[in-house]
Amino acid sequence: MAKKFTVTPWKVEGEVDYGRLIREFGTEPITDSLLARIRKHTGELHHFLRRKIFFSHREMGWLLDQYERGDKFYLYTGRGPSGNTHLGHLVPWLFTKWLQDKFDSELWFQMTDDEKFLFNDSLSLEESNSMAYENALDVIALGFKQGKTFIFADTDYSKTLYKHALKVSKRLTVSTAKAAFGFTDSNTVGQYFYTSMQSVPAFLPSALKGKNIPCLIPHAIDQDPHFRITRDIVPKLGYYKPAAIHSVFLPSLEGPKGKMSSSIGESAVYTTDTPELVEKKIRKYAFSGGRDTVVEHRKKGGNPEIDVSYQWLRFFEESDEKLKAVHGDYKSGRLLTGELKQILIDKLTVFLKRHQEAREKARKVLDRFVIMD
Amino acid sequence: MAKKFTVTPWKVEGEVDYGRLIREFGTEPITDSLLARIRKHTGELHHFLRRKIFFSHREMGWLLDQYERGDKFYLYTGRGPSGNTHLGHLVPWLFTKWLQDKFDSELWFQMTDDEKFLFNDSLSLEESNSMAYENALDVIALGFKQGKTFIFADTDYSKTLYKHALKVSKRLTVSTAKAAFGFTDSNTVGQYFYTSMQSVPAFLPSALKGKNIPCLIPHAIDQDPHFRITRDIVPKLGYYKPAAIHSVFLPSLEGPKGKMSSSIGESAVYTTDTPELVEKKIRKYAFSGGRDTVVEHRKKGGNPEIDVSYQWLRFFEESDEKLKAVHGDYKSGRLLTGELKQILIDKLTVFLKRHQEAREKARKVLDRFVIMD
Repeated sequence: MAKKFTVTPWKVEGEVDYGRLIREFGTEPITDSLLARIRKHTGELHHFLRRKIFFSHREMGWLLDQYERGDKFYLYTGRGPSGNTHLGHLVPWLFTKWLQDKFDSELWFQMTDDEKFLFNDSLSLEESNSMAYENALDVIALGFKQGKTFIFADTDYSKTLYKHALKVSKRLTVSTAKAAFGFTDSNTVGQYFYTSMQSVPAFLPSALKGKNIPCLIPHAIDQDPHFRITRDIVPKLGYYKPAAIHSVFLPSLEGPKGKMSSSIGESAVYTTDTPELVEKKIRKYAFSGGRDTVVEHRKKGGNPEIDVSYQWLRFFEESDEKLKAVHGDYKSGRLLTGELKQILIDKLTVFLKRHQEAREKARKVLDRFVIMD
Repeated sequence: MAKKFTVTPWKVEGEVDYGRLIREFGTEPITDSLLARIRKHTGELHHFLRRKIFFSHREMGWLLDQYERGDKFYLYTGRGPSGNTHLGHLVPWLFTKWLQDKFDSELWFQMTDDEKFLFNDSLSLEESNSMAYENALDVIALGFKQGKTFIFADTDYSKTLYKHALKVSKRLTVSTAKAAFGFTDSNTVGQYFYTSMQSVPAFLPSALKGKNIPCLIPHAIDQDPHFRITRDIVPKLGYYKPAAIHSVFLPSLEGPKGKMSSSIGESAVYTTDTPELVEKKIRKYAFSGGRDTVVEHRKKGGNPEIDVSYQWLRFFEESDEKLKAVHGDYKSGRLLTGELKQILIDKLTVFLKRHQEAREKARKVLDRFVIMD
């Protein structure tokens, strides 16, 4: 029997079956031939592609057709600024950075302070707005190109966004939103309206420049219901449907199949965590695929498929060779869970040290990346 | 049997029974003692009050309590800019002008270009936005005080409005909006959200100035469903409930009981109509309370209660004495319908000549009245 799980933009629960999501959402799997076609332009494949961490898409073929005809695309992704950035949030951004480098694309980055306010009873708009600029430091720290990267918080860019959102909202009935999101009459009019705002960056550069520019949205698969609506509506406004490429979720420390969530503090590692805290969280909470005793582990080996430390290395260890060695060593029992955790801790310590330094430097250049009305 | 009629912000149909509206909407009738209390502050009563053209209210008593304690109120009214201004639109504005003069109040005037776009399939946002500034000329032409009158189109002031609208929209469920407006799941998310924008000026000056300022909204009774929602929600945001005072509709030329509508061109007189066109419309279309023949009219007299020319004089002839004379003369048969029409034509010609001159002058000072982000 198929296990029950839920994936909406606001809730991910249960053990996610990504193959089933592709069928249920009606997206396309990323095939080897698509990868080969991407590699033709990029020279190499990001490890997120090699490992199918980006596993699904909508109309990448069309996007590459356009690109090959000389019609360059821009990138659009975003963040709901309800709290500090954790490693799971970085996954689409790291990939987006790679895409910007390889395709020399503009990036439009939306901070949905309105959304987080509307969907979180205890969050004030002032809090989510201020968090937008804290989170923007994490975006900039990844090395996006100044002059080609435009970060905006919805409420501070709403003179521009609202009038375009109106055009989407005029085409979207409550009944369609109910079907896409599972909303009821108890949801608020703000929640219903919000998806119109999330649609705007999928055509805003075209609207501002007065010509149709292809758009690629790299994002975690849970946001797909928004962009299904976007894709239905924007052609009626005279713009291209955006293409999209979808990632799986970085699993929670506490289990290999769900999504890291800020609502359980121990399940997440934040970009601002100290090395000591990162070590403590991984040692204490990272779900282990090891055996009950060292003797048994040495004899029977561990299970990397359910071991969160190994799963996280799939995201953060770029070398296939090193990853393969860890996989083999853990499976054979040569590598103990504690040792595997240490490999992850070392990797993240280096990553976060560099990130935190870049994040502090980002404060000085924040205003060169932010656009507002 | 009670006759059927409909009054919503977007549709007025049938013969409106204003007494029943007071009961169904749950507003209060304007009593003689309330009028006496207003007169205490204004010295005189506007003919719209003397004639119960403003007939209903919400919490005028509270507003005057505040005023008498030294807590001055501001005025808020507005316009949905879907086309040219007609005389019916002027009714609440003329009264608002009188209130501004008598109480030395600020006026916040909302041009809901977003609303008209969302509720009119064939209107573009660019059209309704441009119409907002055409309509603003009519507002300014009435003589509102520069420096105390702030006119804004929603889309051009949305950086300010949107974030406050979000706070309303977070408190308003689809189910409440359905009950207030008769919406269904086929209405758009834009239409559901819109009432949040209309709520904002009822507390915006308080929000901007950081202190609670009483608000009075003079408006035609059809807008009451919006402000019922506003009044439910804004106390939860920490602001005063706005008070309101409600007018009847200026009847259509073609019948005495409904509302003038731009959707039937002949039923309305526009502020930009030439004297010849005004004369032609009134001669040709103004519904008559007269008899079939002059002989019969002289003998039995006409019926001013159903005669649109007489009804319009109730709005535009300020002198009670003159109006009473017309009423008596028409009822007795001394005054023929053609003569009554001529009295109205003369009155409107003078009014519109002055208005059109002031309207052209308003173009030069428009930017001193308009606020935008």
